[in-house]
Formats: sequence, structure tokens, C-alpha cells
Amino acid sequence: MRLVTYRAHGESAARLGAIQGDLVVDLEHLGAASGVALPSSMLAFIDLGPTAVTAAVALLTSMGNDWPVGVATPLANVRLLAPIPRPRKNIFGIGLNYIDHVAESAAALDTSPDLPKQPVIFSKPPTSICGPGDPVLHDATITQQLDWEVELAAIIGTTAKRVSRADALKHVFGYSVLIDMSARDCRRAGQWIYSKGQDSYAPMGPCIVTTDEIPDPQTLDLWLTVNGVEKQRSNTSHMLFKVDELIADISRGITLEPGDIIATGTPEGVGAGRTPQEFLWPGDVIACGVEGIGELRHPIVAV
Amino acid sequence: MRLVTYRAHGESAARLGAIQGDLVVDLEHLGAASGVALPSSMLAFIDLGPTAVTAAVALLTSMGNDWPVGVATPLANVRLLAPIPRPRKNIFGIGLNYIDHVAESAAALDTSPDLPKQPVIFSKPPTSICGPGDPVLHDATITQQLDWEVELAAIIGTTAKRVSRADALKHVFGYSVLIDMSARDCRRAGQWIYSKGQDSYAPMGPCIVTTDEIPDPQTLDLWLTVNGVEKQRSNTSHMLFKVDELIADISRGITLEPGDIIATGTPEGVGAGRTPQEFLWPGDVIACGVEGIGELRHPIVAV
Repeated sequence: MRLVTYRAHGESAARLGAIQGDLVVDLEHLGAASGVALPSSMLAFIDLGPTAVTAAVALLTSMGNDWPVGVATPLANVRLLAPIPRPRKNIFGIGLNYIDHVAESAAALDTSPDLPKQPVIFSKPPTSICGPGDPVLHDATITQQLDWEVELAAIIGTTAKRVSRADALKHVFGYSVLIDMSARDCRRAGQWIYSKGQDSYAPMGPCIVTTDEIPDPQTLDLWLTVNGVEKQRSNTSHMLFKVDELIADISRGITLEPGDIIATGTPEGVGAGRTPQEFLWPGDVIACGVEGIGELRHPIVAV
Repeated sequence: MRLVTYRAHGESAARLGAIQGDLVVDLEHLGAASGVALPSSMLAFIDLGPTAVTAAVALLTSMGNDWPVGVATPLANVRLLAPIPRPRKNIFGIGLNYIDHVAESAAALDTSPDLPKQPVIFSKPPTSICGPGDPVLHDATITQQLDWEVELAAIIGTTAKRVSRADALKHVFGYSVLIDMSARDCRRAGQWIYSKGQDSYAPMGPCIVTTDEIPDPQTLDLWLTVNGVEKQRSNTSHMLFKVDELIADISRGITLEPGDIIATGTPEGVGAGRTPQEFLWPGDVIACGVEGIGELRHPIVAV
């Protein structure tokens, strides 16, 4: 399934939907019309566990595009929000997780040229999330070095505590696209949360694709452009620590919970790593995507 | 008020209470008996804003220790939980915020001897929180360098976005004690979340003291012992960045929200900074306190 959180024009409440062609199908309403209890929010749906995914997929398939009245809305008539507009904890970010990005980071920033021996983890607060198309805020009193990082995000489906690498992907609900906006000049004594965690610094979306459609997360192209010029292009096969390794590693010490988001790191091509360095300014537009999931497009706007 | 989250013996639900002598007064039940709507959880109470604090203080004062039936329970008959057992985002931690700790850290770890020019921020996930008396987990396959850090925690009461230092303390709900457990050998490329964010690495409590009882958070003694031997003793007057500066600084880029927790940094005397270095092992007991708030006592237990 391609799951979205959306708001229909004229409605104030966010809803959980599944994209079907050029329609969004309201899962709670579809369930109600079919005698299946489905919730209205992404986190509540994730909490129901894998059987709810199976049930929802079966229900959507059984309908044959013959939707009950009031269940389907044209995509053109809705606004997509971040799939998880408000997670229950900070996003887990992974740094230095593509080999060529380790090199460009060491040359331009303060990180080591050696490949990390274990995943490098940081976090971005829930307040940093914004939805598809939302402005990324540029506060020139705080940063002159706002940079881009396109990433595959993995969404945890079931509690993972000391799970093996072999079992790790069973704990994944799905995948999304996340931009790890990074104000390079806001690092503090090497800590990244202030450089990566400011309001609007985690654009996310446009949807979460459940694992039945992405059985292997390590084969996906990802790319990013600034004002239409390609800056990043790689494939998740180049990750240093794969998604299953990240989950096994984090869960050894930190219990992962349903709805947790892991931003799995960015490939080479960030602004700080270019010669001369390039950063984002109000008026710029970044666009990016991950194969099989979708695309994001965000203007940079002065606060 | 001295507010706690507690569970009465034989009850499964966590409740919000105010300590009155050797009793815990259930705020929701007291309110119900008095025609005042008060909630059953700390976060719901914080969400009500400063007028709810004023109303609850007035209500408690008006009772003159003459409690309606079923409202008060002897402290001896309850188990205290962390005052906020499950915050809505990661705890904000502040590193290197006492001058003498900056020196010991630079000598023993990988940080700079220069005083930070801006607050050094990191985070600890909600899953790291544990309550008074709970075991701090020691996983010898992950760490051989588990260390202690006693800290004053500030709890945000109202949304703070680009607030001035002069207005910052108006956004504080109250203060608590938090131990920033730190596995020194789990730092990764300088990032601290894995060293400080593992399950049980944020003991918190025993209560939150509201700001009416602590108008100035920069005058408080704090201390920590290991197996009864004093290791840390200082005063919050020695903070490099005071609580109001921390709130003003963070809120420039990251919106602070009701219920957010800021652990304000630890003074000198951590294990890594001693000669020879000292770390915690199963069987050890750490105790600590902050003046006017209370004490915590936690065993280190092997997982």
C-alpha cells in the first residue's frame, strides 16, 4: 500500500488514506462501509500491527475500484501532510552512512575520513517535521550554511528490542522519503541536533509504502535537485550499514517502537562537499525522490 | 507544589498527585470532590497551563489537610514513577555546561578544553526514562564505561518559540532531578545519543516542583554518591548557560512545547574525569539529589 496522511479541501481533520491511482481512499471510512475496523491516523494504524496491513490490502484489492460513496477523493482535491505528522519521539538520524559521503564530509566538515565502525546516530525532534510542499525555513540570523540531504526513511512497525539482523526487517512497517536539512554552521561541539533539528528541517513524504511493496530496501535509486539541477544521485545499495543492520544495532541498547522513524543517511553530493561550497537561500527550491516511493518538492523561505 | 506520578499499591493506573507531608493527594479526585476539573496525568496537567497550577495550589491550600475520603494516600503505600513517564519527544540534554566539567571532560574524553560559546545540545529518547528506584541497566556487551551525571531538569510549561532570555523562565512549569547516565565508550563519531540514550539511562524524579516554589533555579546545590561515597557536589549557580539562556537559545530554532524536558548539564566529578577513571558495575548504587526537589537512588543491574 501507498499510505498517506491528508486533509481534504474544506476539512480540518487529518485522515489516513491509501492512494489508488489518482484517488485517495479513506481507510477508516472504507473499513466502516465494509465491517472492518480501521483507524483514521497513521500511528493508530501502525499500532494495529501486521495483520491490519494484510486486512487493509485485502479490502482494497477486493473493491476493484468500486468505492462506496464518500470513501474516495481525487488526489487533486486533497493536501498531503507528512505521513506521520507528529511522531512520538525524535526521528533517529544516521550520519556518514554512504561511503562517498564520508569522504566529502571529511574534506569539508569536521568528521573523520575513516569509515565508521558502527552506525553514527543523532536525532531530529518531532517539531522538525513538515509535509510535502511545506516551506523549509531559512533564518539568516542562525545559519548561512543550510544544506540538503535526501534519505530513505524506515518506519518501525513492531517493537524491536535486541533483534538480530536476520529478524530486523520483520519489524519494519514501511518506507518514506525524508530530507535531513542540515545547517552546517549550527553544529555545536560536534553535536548535530541543533544543525539538523530546527523547525521544518525534516520534510517527509509523500507517502509510506508498506513492506509488501518494498521487500528489499537496498535497491532503490534516490536523487535530489536544487532549482532543477541534479546534486545527489545514488542508490540505497551503497549504504554502509543497511536498514537491517541499523535496526539490529540501535535495538541492542535503545528499544525501537511502532511509529519510530529512522532516516538512513544521505549519499554524496551535499552542498558542503562541493567546490565551491553551495548552500540554500530563500527562493531556492529543492526536489528529491526515492524510487518506488515518491517525490518531495520544497521551497526555501525566509522566516 | 511537589507533583508526582504514582501508582498506589494494588492499582495498575498511574495517577497525578501532590505531596502533602507524608501523604500523596490525588489531584483529579480532589478536584472532583471540589467541583474543579483536574486531570489524572502530569502531561495533561501541564497542558492546562499556568492557571491550572494556580487553581490546584489554591485548592490544596484551602483544604487545610482535611482531605475528602479516597483522595489522600500515605506515601509509604505508593510507588513513585518518573514524574513524566513518557514525554512526547526526546529529552533535550545539555553537555559541557559547568566550567569544571568542561575541563575534566577535555582531559579524559574527546571534547575541547575551550568553554562552549553556545549550548551543546543532544537528546535522550523517551524510552531512556525510568522512575525512582528503578534499575539502571548495565549491558557489559555494549559498555565497560557506564558513568554518572546528576542534573537539574527544567520542564517546559508553555510553548516557547524565539523567546527572549527575559521571558524564558515564564515558560517553565517546574524542575526535577535527572541522571544523565552516559556510556562513555558508546560515543560514535562524537555523537552522544547512543552513549546517553539507552533504555533506563534517564532516571527522573522523585517529583516536579513547580516554579512558585523555585523562583530562581540557579541557586540549588546538587550532589551524587556512588555506594555512599560522594562523587559530585556543586551548585546550579556554576552553570555556564543558565536555564533562561538555554530556553532562549533552543527556542530560536527549535520550538519548545509543554512537557518538554531539558536536562541542564552536570558539574565536575564524573567517573571518566577521575584518576584513575571509575565506572559503574552491577551491584553499585548511585544516589543523588537537587536542593529543594528531592533525591534519587538507583541500583546498577546487569541485563
